[in-house]
Amino acid sequence: MNAARMIGIGVGPGDPELMTLKAIRALREADVVAHFAKAGKASHARTIAAAHLKPGVVELPLLYPVTTELPKHTPAYCDKIDAFYADCADAIAAHLDAGRSVAVISEGDPLFYGSYMHLHVRLAPRYPTEIVPGVTGMSGCWSAIGAPIAQGDDVFMVLPGTLAEEELARRLREADAAVVMKLGRNLPKVRRALACAGRLDRAMYVERGTMASAVIAPLAHKADDDAPYFAMVLVPGWRRA
Amino acid sequence: MNAARMIGIGVGPGDPELMTLKAIRALREADVVAHFAKAGKASHARTIAAAHLKPGVVELPLLYPVTTELPKHTPAYCDKIDAFYADCADAIAAHLDAGRSVAVISEGDPLFYGSYMHLHVRLAPRYPTEIVPGVTGMSGCWSAIGAPIAQGDDVFMVLPGTLAEEELARRLREADAAVVMKLGRNLPKVRRALACAGRLDRAMYVERGTMASAVIAPLAHKADDDAPYFAMVLVPGWRRA
Repeated sequence: MNAARMIGIGVGPGDPELMTLKAIRALREADVVAHFAKAGKASHARTIAAAHLKPGVVELPLLYPVTTELPKHTPAYCDKIDAFYADCADAIAAHLDAGRSVAVISEGDPLFYGSYMHLHVRLAPRYPTEIVPGVTGMSGCWSAIGAPIAQGDDVFMVLPGTLAEEELARRLREADAAVVMKLGRNLPKVRRALACAGRLDRAMYVERGTMASAVIAPLAHKADDDAPYFAMVLVPGWRRA
Repeated sequence: MNAARMIGIGVGPGDPELMTLKAIRALREADVVAHFAKAGKASHARTIAAAHLKPGVVELPLLYPVTTELPKHTPAYCDKIDAFYADCADAIAAHLDAGRSVAVISEGDPLFYGSYMHLHVRLAPRYPTEIVPGVTGMSGCWSAIGAPIAQGDDVFMVLPGTLAEEELARRLREADAAVVMKLGRNLPKVRRALACAGRLDRAMYVERGTMASAVIAPLAHKADDDAPYFAMVLVPGWRRA
């Protein structure tokens, strides 16, 4: 029996070989393994970590409610997603109260744009927690293309593609190096903002960087019509002096 | 005999257990293992990876020239450091020309503010290269303090402590979440910039986050006088709505 605690485990960007030794050990030691997934779909984190789950370990799937019918940032959406995270936290707390350790596996790094954070802010005030950092999705992507992303005194920024076009362009002008996330239907706008900031020529488009199914192209050669939400654009900051 | 190629391997932020399976495999397969270090000091990357070096593997230490007597950004310093990286690239190229694979181990992630990049830009145009991404030092630090760093549509920035105070303050006001690197004697200036930007109250100081010797404190409680250059300040962006 482990001491009751929640462990946020980063399983890396996609390639199972990019899991750390610590993630694998923590996974094998946990009594319960929880993972977020869309209803009806496999959890990406679980797929990455599958080979390291103990046979017969208790699993706790945390299935996002179907909210595509609700526009984001509306009160109805926020209430629904907030209730979902509260339910997830309650389900984990029930295991912790019974003296079990619960591993929550996350793609990338748990505290860097991960759903795990919604559990952490709810449960860390009440229960012991531990974080096992992971290789981020963006590291996986710039490594896949061999792009030296930032060096020396570079200012590096992560920008969401959801920002308004003018704000994106302004921030891109201020960054030596940048990653733009949340592409999807924001891609045409992101492309215009990069062009406006004079950064389109070096921008690279990367989808599933560490997977066999990776899509990698200069953004200038990538069509606007089919970018998934999790694809990213990299703007390397550094070139040899 | 491996195919001649250079492999940039990230060995993570310090805890050897935060090495990935892929880093360990790549290290065991390489004919030569190169690592940067200050003359007279052990390479941090080599210390992290020591347990996974093949007995008798050829090692290639890359020893930084002593340049403390030269002010940074002067032509004399730049010439000296440029000649050093050119020599390192030549030494690696000699192994590659002899058909050997060369692993260059780096703390954190090789393409994120790493010295490896100076080799990559010189050799990638002429030889096959591969990158094994690693857990960054900053992920190690925010995981050590359990600080949800960035979420949702947050803008995240990495800022060097070398920036002028006014510019640091301006950029910190524009960031939802930030990491300030290169502290050392820049710490008093970084503190003033954070205060000016209204972000001092949440700022955390972290040194060697994943090591037994970690130093972790709210920046407001940390003295200005003894911060090493590699320490960092974290400004978490996210709090529960």
